Amino acid sequence: MTSIYLTEPGTKVSYHNQQLQIKQKSRQVITRLAEIDLLVLFPGVQLTDVAIAVLMDQGIETIFLRRDGQFRGRLQGQFATNPLTRIAQYRVLDSTFGTALAQRLILGKVTNQRAILQRRHRDTGKKNNALAEAIDLIGAYRLSLRSGLGNSSRDQLMGIEGICAKHYYQVFQFCLPEGWSFTGRNRRPPKDPVNALLSWGYGVLLARVFSAIVQAGLDPYLGFFHATQPYRPNLALDLMEEFRPVVVDQAIVRLLRSGILDPLDFEPSYDGLGIWLGITAKKLFLTELESILQTSFLYSPQSRRLKLQQIILEQARCLGRCCLESSLDYEPFTLS
Amino acid sequence: MTSIYLTEPGTKVSYHNQQLQIKQKSRQVITRLAEIDLLVLFPGVQLTDVAIAVLMDQGIETIFLRRDGQFRGRLQGQFATNPLTRIAQYRVLDSTFGTALAQRLILGKVTNQRAILQRRHRDTGKKNNALAEAIDLIGAYRLSLRSGLGNSSRDQLMGIEGICAKHYYQVFQFCLPEGWSFTGRNRRPPKDPVNALLSWGYGVLLARVFSAIVQAGLDPYLGFFHATQPYRPNLALDLMEEFRPVVVDQAIVRLLRSGILDPLDFEPSYDGLGIWLGITAKKLFLTELESILQTSFLYSPQSRRLKLQQIILEQARCLGRCCLESSLDYEPFTLS
Repeated sequence: MTSIYLTEPGTKVSYHNQQLQIKQKSRQVITRLAEIDLLVLFPGVQLTDVAIAVLMDQGIETIFLRRDGQFRGRLQGQFATNPLTRIAQYRVLDSTFGTALAQRLILGKVTNQRAILQRRHRDTGKKNNALAEAIDLIGAYRLSLRSGLGNSSRDQLMGIEGICAKHYYQVFQFCLPEGWSFTGRNRRPPKDPVNALLSWGYGVLLARVFSAIVQAGLDPYLGFFHATQPYRPNLALDLMEEFRPVVVDQAIVRLLRSGILDPLDFEPSYDGLGIWLGITAKKLFLTELESILQTSFLYSPQSRRLKLQQIILEQARCLGRCCLESSLDYEPFTLS
Repeated sequence: MTSIYLTEPGTKVSYHNQQLQIKQKSRQVITRLAEIDLLVLFPGVQLTDVAIAVLMDQGIETIFLRRDGQFRGRLQGQFATNPLTRIAQYRVLDSTFGTALAQRLILGKVTNQRAILQRRHRDTGKKNNALAEAIDLIGAYRLSLRSGLGNSSRDQLMGIEGICAKHYYQVFQFCLPEGWSFTGRNRRPPKDPVNALLSWGYGVLLARVFSAIVQAGLDPYLGFFHATQPYRPNLALDLMEEFRPVVVDQAIVRLLRSGILDPLDFEPSYDGLGIWLGITAKKLFLTELESILQTSFLYSPQSRRLKLQQIILEQARCLGRCCLESSLDYEPFTLS
């Protein structure tokens, strides 16, 4: 199955004979509809009315992103799933069981944040004291999360998540090559290239996680950790936690270390207050993100290797099953 | 606020300067975005990418229908509603409270079916025994529904709804002028023009009710009467019950009695097994449907006159409030 990202303004997508025809300035690509599982569209991409109809009828997840990578919306055809999953989800929402699920999701996140730092620490001969300290601190919170599984309140979880994120982003600069300054997370708008990459990448990841959640029959707006704040796809933000370091942060580290991306590939945002990815930066970053999503990892609940994009879907399905069966049988996906 | 239905293949919708430009073969219409609350698109209508983006960003409900009037899908932007409404809806689902709500919805439907027959009965000097009998029979079921409010099981409700529908459609022919035969309901595909109008009209109404339910923050797929059958927008089907006779059946009676529609305005379906509305029939019928939806009625819960399309939204909101407040304060909208 193929995920197709269309970033280039002026791209036209039409349908003919069970195939999507994708016309760009320089080239034309034809893909069989049966091979596509996700279509992600950036501004300036035109779908014909027939293409829209076919995408909805065939249940191919079609997502519209903004220029800054944020989720704008999607085509909603008929739900092809069992609504009992959503009923179960709602039953769990205000329960200690829901908070216990949230605890596993946050455990996954901090475990993966720590793993990213550990890798760097090993690669650099364990000489960086700041890295060592952050790894230890996050490790302590991780242990407390693991040992007290199901015992924390949501406020406590919020606190732990926030503290670990602070420690993590404080030393994230040491994972990056020289020439890319990063002194902590900022956004809306991001004020430097690394923050721009983080914001844009999390937007793209959110779209995929949102799509996986809908495919699993869950309501993306009602979460366990992010709870039920209006105007936010809370469950998508929940499930995304464990995948943020694995997909986005890793892609940024790899891309910047490869030396291919240049600070000139970024540009000031329209309002001049922030930094945006230029078209080349978007393409290079999407390629890196997609390469990670296509990488196979051991998926221990099923004792087999799966592509990361499939693992995201399986984790969404697992959340659905946990709700349906009132079972806490959710293992976050972690980098070993 | 305006609802725009675009039926003509070849129509192009673009955005410029806070306005939608709608280009058709013969003419061009420009409408301010701020005046549009609903856009309903039939096959062959092309939206530009900018129009799609703006419709999602502004939260303008955009619905795609099939050639046969059935719901195909919609643009889903961010939810702009309180998710607590959906949580409350789920809590109610498997309760006697949910069935009591279903009972009110069915009470609304049979009351309005009976009102349609009564009007005709009065207009024709009360000489038709079949009409009189159907009115009495439906009236008896209506009374039992009203007196036993909250006491029926869902199966009993299904039974009453089915029997009333049978009696109603058996005499519906007497509401129609001569030259239009109708001996009962058939569909998938409809086999005569009146059944084609009913199917198509219910499809269009469903789209509007679906949109109202989403605007009210409810999950259209989980119902009280139609319960939680997969692959069906059950709550939309629920709320639609009381509006079917008022909107669709009334529009058909008016349209056919006006003498404007001709049997030649219908055509065989592609597969030759059924009857479809031609383009003229669609336009005439939509005009009639829209005229009813724009008519003001007394909305007794608020003691004021509202357009019927606004009443549909208010009834959806009322369902949401009933769920949130565990109150059975839902009065079906009925023709007096």
